[in-house]
Amino acid sequence: MSIAPSHFQTIVPTDQLTESVDVDTFKAAFRMHPAGVAVITTDSGDRPAAMTVSSLASVSTEPPMVIFSLSRMSGAAAAFLESDNVVIHLPGAAQLWLAQMAAAPGVDRFADPTQWTRLPTGEPVFPDTYAWLRGRIVSRLEAGNSVICVAHIVQASVPDAETLVNDQSAPLVYHARTWHQLGTGSKI
Amino acid sequence: MSIAPSHFQTIVPTDQLTESVDVDTFKAAFRMHPAGVAVITTDSGDRPAAMTVSSLASVSTEPPMVIFSLSRMSGAAAAFLESDNVVIHLPGAAQLWLAQMAAAPGVDRFADPTQWTRLPTGEPVFPDTYAWLRGRIVSRLEAGNSVICVAHIVQASVPDAETLVNDQSAPLVYHARTWHQLGTGSKI
Repeated sequence: MSIAPSHFQTIVPTDQLTESVDVDTFKAAFRMHPAGVAVITTDSGDRPAAMTVSSLASVSTEPPMVIFSLSRMSGAAAAFLESDNVVIHLPGAAQLWLAQMAAAPGVDRFADPTQWTRLPTGEPVFPDTYAWLRGRIVSRLEAGNSVICVAHIVQASVPDAETLVNDQSAPLVYHARTWHQLGTGSKI
Repeated sequence: MSIAPSHFQTIVPTDQLTESVDVDTFKAAFRMHPAGVAVITTDSGDRPAAMTVSSLASVSTEPPMVIFSLSRMSGAAAAFLESDNVVIHLPGAAQLWLAQMAAAPGVDRFADPTQWTRLPTGEPVFPDTYAWLRGRIVSRLEAGNSVICVAHIVQASVPDAETLVNDQSAPLVYHARTWHQLGTGSKI
């Protein structure tokens, strides 16, 4: 493990934090905060792993980088701490089944061999997802009971404009423990 | 600046990254990825600053922590590198004006003194926002042309259940350069 001190700054170590907001109030605020979701896959060597996250964000274009966080409580977390190579799927409403499956505790995400395959580089992929990006985790940062991962994106499968127009897969949003899809009716 | 090596891991330093995905393809993928937005304020000492981000995520509940990223291209970025104390506003559709204003380059977000005030702790706040959280940035991590901030949440103003029922402010989502609001019509 190499450290790049100039690129990382700790102001307050976690074990020196004092007063926190009430946890129920904190949870209530974020329950009502809408989010897109992503299904991230990896294979740490023995078998594929997948998890649904609502924390994916693009943070840089040059170089192209994203962040996502993984809870240590997630059964899939260990695989993402051991393996750096990931595929980040962006499901549309037509792939709600995938987002739900990869969020469900104890469910084998790879039980149906018709739903997934492997990229030439080895990572597990659900190819019917609206879009996916292949990347490599370049740094990890602990934050409470989660680990924040920064990934460099090296490949992507994104539908072209014509495909988008005909696409039946509306954008998928998670909010207040419910799923929503965006469309002309939701536009402001 | 103190460094906590055991909590931070660099796998590939940014200057050693090799092949990247085409930037336009990367941008196209995230343009279609829906996101909730937040308006974050701070005051580095001379004057208040505010910016709209689509990268806010809750990452930990014990302790309560969030992440967000700020682009170095943003005019407000410097203030968030100098000051650790922030207020994270979660705007509903009724506060679209605030999200748009804090995203607009060169606009003085604090021109109208009736729209904002200061908390007893000094941070600028737009009190009419659906919900807000006060926090302290506890670590920063460089990622390409952005800086990822981890903030510990110490206070929050969140509407209670009764207020929520009567709230006219639908959840606000940004997608494909357009604003959407969630409602019963968007539920799957």
